[in-house]
Amino acid sequence: MKEIKKIQYAGFSYINGGVCAAKGFRANGLYTGIKENPTKKPDLCLVVSDQICRAVAVFTQNKVQAAPVTVSKRHLQQTGGTAHGMILNSKNANACNADGVEKSERMCQLAAEKIGVDAAEILIAQTGVIGQIMPIKPMEKNIDALYQGLSYDGNEKAAIAIMTTDTVKKEVAVEFQLDGKICHIGGMGKGSGMICPNMATTLNVITTDCAISTEMLQKALDSVVKVTYNCLYIDGDQSTNDTCAVLANGFAENVEIDGEGEAYDKFCQALFIVMSNITKMLAKDGEGATKLLECNVTGGKTWEDALAIAKSVIASDLLKCAMFGEDANWGRILCAIGYAPAEFTLEHVAVTLESSGGSVKVCENGAGVAFSEEAAKKVLEADEIQIQVDLADGTAKATAWGCDLTYDYVKINSDYRT
Amino acid sequence: MKEIKKIQYAGFSYINGGVCAAKGFRANGLYTGIKENPTKKPDLCLVVSDQICRAVAVFTQNKVQAAPVTVSKRHLQQTGGTAHGMILNSKNANACNADGVEKSERMCQLAAEKIGVDAAEILIAQTGVIGQIMPIKPMEKNIDALYQGLSYDGNEKAAIAIMTTDTVKKEVAVEFQLDGKICHIGGMGKGSGMICPNMATTLNVITTDCAISTEMLQKALDSVVKVTYNCLYIDGDQSTNDTCAVLANGFAENVEIDGEGEAYDKFCQALFIVMSNITKMLAKDGEGATKLLECNVTGGKTWEDALAIAKSVIASDLLKCAMFGEDANWGRILCAIGYAPAEFTLEHVAVTLESSGGSVKVCENGAGVAFSEEAAKKVLEADEIQIQVDLADGTAKATAWGCDLTYDYVKINSDYRT
Repeated sequence: MKEIKKIQYAGFSYINGGVCAAKGFRANGLYTGIKENPTKKPDLCLVVSDQICRAVAVFTQNKVQAAPVTVSKRHLQQTGGTAHGMILNSKNANACNADGVEKSERMCQLAAEKIGVDAAEILIAQTGVIGQIMPIKPMEKNIDALYQGLSYDGNEKAAIAIMTTDTVKKEVAVEFQLDGKICHIGGMGKGSGMICPNMATTLNVITTDCAISTEMLQKALDSVVKVTYNCLYIDGDQSTNDTCAVLANGFAENVEIDGEGEAYDKFCQALFIVMSNITKMLAKDGEGATKLLECNVTGGKTWEDALAIAKSVIASDLLKCAMFGEDANWGRILCAIGYAPAEFTLEHVAVTLESSGGSVKVCENGAGVAFSEEAAKKVLEADEIQIQVDLADGTAKATAWGCDLTYDYVKINSDYRT
Repeated sequence: MKEIKKIQYAGFSYINGGVCAAKGFRANGLYTGIKENPTKKPDLCLVVSDQICRAVAVFTQNKVQAAPVTVSKRHLQQTGGTAHGMILNSKNANACNADGVEKSERMCQLAAEKIGVDAAEILIAQTGVIGQIMPIKPMEKNIDALYQGLSYDGNEKAAIAIMTTDTVKKEVAVEFQLDGKICHIGGMGKGSGMICPNMATTLNVITTDCAISTEMLQKALDSVVKVTYNCLYIDGDQSTNDTCAVLANGFAENVEIDGEGEAYDKFCQALFIVMSNITKMLAKDGEGATKLLECNVTGGKTWEDALAIAKSVIASDLLKCAMFGEDANWGRILCAIGYAPAEFTLEHVAVTLESSGGSVKVCENGAGVAFSEEAAKKVLEADEIQIQVDLADGTAKATAWGCDLTYDYVKINSDYRT
């Protein structure tokens, strides 16, 4: 059961449709055999808007950047922040290849020719093994079928095509109103391993029919990514390929958002709902994971302090193992708080473990308190665990998401290439 | 087979004796039942010098510091850097306990009374589960037997007493000459999990009969710890208890080292030999480890760049899993180089995998090169793997040590408290 529990927000409804939830977006995904695969799981997909979009993206902060990152950055610069569509594949990262950029450009060109636009108006993202030569033939052979198969409900095929070790596809979409107009934001993501918060993270495509300026779209993405994907931790490895792109085609016909204000805030909230839910999905489906872990830090002096502590707790291999073993080894939480790059007062720290199974306080004033091991076991048996850390040093709060560390993480990654 | 291969150095001979290798040091270890244990493995030990020592130490940089860290720091300050002995226990970290400092002070006092010195002249280190109340009765009951059993060959009992999840004891000692006098440096360490390079690391006691000023002893320890224990990575968790102390009693009767020069350099080299070998032992016996990994970075612009890259590679969970699976997934090495906080030129990077099974170049000019999977498999089958990264950007070099990530790491840590 890798499904997450979604929080309900007034004024926003969850809808189906993923990257096709917003008006005017078509998608498709198919199997091209980039790497032979008996299951014939789709490995290539295309997301296309019926008209040109405002487009922004954030990318991995790894200094070793895959070719698609180089190419997408270049295209956004060339167009000044517009795009018509995006092509994505799994099964090959096209990173650390001498001819990588040439191949990524070629893929954009293939898509652009079909759509009848300039290659610079196509963004690209790729994921898979690093340092394997990217085969271009499967693309050339299948681009026509991929294009012909585009449809307004092709979102699921696309979401499946970008999966690597993911066990479930990740799609979220919401509907809301701006100026009495119905608006949508929807997205898809892929994650699983090589995920660390200091970055954009993973492959993600978000589409919206809202009208919004490129500048405000980038601002919204930057602010939301900071409290969603960048607060996600699976294994501390920052991928070479991470890309999160947002395409906005304006079909909703709201008054274009070109500055801060109520409409911008509502847009940001909708984007947060989509991206935070995808973040939780990515956490829950981390490689080998059996549990979603959420660390909520309250009472921080600053947001930076609260966030650093939340991330440090979520990243602790030892805590991740203890959560897998359903062992309330809270000392490891204190230990991880202690090495976070943050200010706090140990004597103020309280820690509570929570889930659908109940709530158990394990630490107060920086020291252990007596608790029922039975009650703790009940809390930790659940598949979504909240680790509540109260610093009682101020009013700032932050959340980070992750998962447990299991035998299967080791199994999956000890023989990933074959 | 957790034994490491030791490098031979001209002018230095490896000898037995651990913390008792240096003249005038006695040790003992025994089982006191701090935590019930059917194997009756020793859990408490004492190391005592026949005369007062110059004493220095480095401690964890975790802001959550265990009581023994607080107490040892206090004692070193009170005495201005001298000590008569050190008491250590496993099975309880005495961290995050409201009465922790009181208990650690009491342990020092118990030892001091037996030896007939001031409690401030005793250092203390403790390791085990965090946040468990420290039982003091086993100490009170056994201190006399511990003291009476001190002997000049009690090093092994002491080394066993500090083991936690370690599968082998860690002792190294060397003999060398200064001013025609025979000198010794020996030490013991315990490690296994909760080990990250940004700190002193683990519990370590080093003893020497060299005559050296407190100031130069601290300088030597600081410089050597930087390139040994601080270059060790097991799981990224920085312990609350890490302590590395050096006691020098001057029994060798060399001219006291009180400044830089030939004698100081030789002392530092001896200290490096002891501490680098213990570091490798700690790496090879990391929790669940089947392989020692060593990352040698050459051609860095600066030492800091080379070190940051070596540490980043050694710390990658994904690479650690690949090494466990003997899978030459070199893309993960490039990925880890890319997110290291360091300057380098991707197009210059070359990576070679080496071991007793041979040598295989997997990456050149920042991109993959064709290599024989069979030859790579042979290299990775060995139990000590060298990952050679040449940055070809300068002349700086650095080494970091770690181990593979295995099912057993997860197993050990998913149920550590019981």
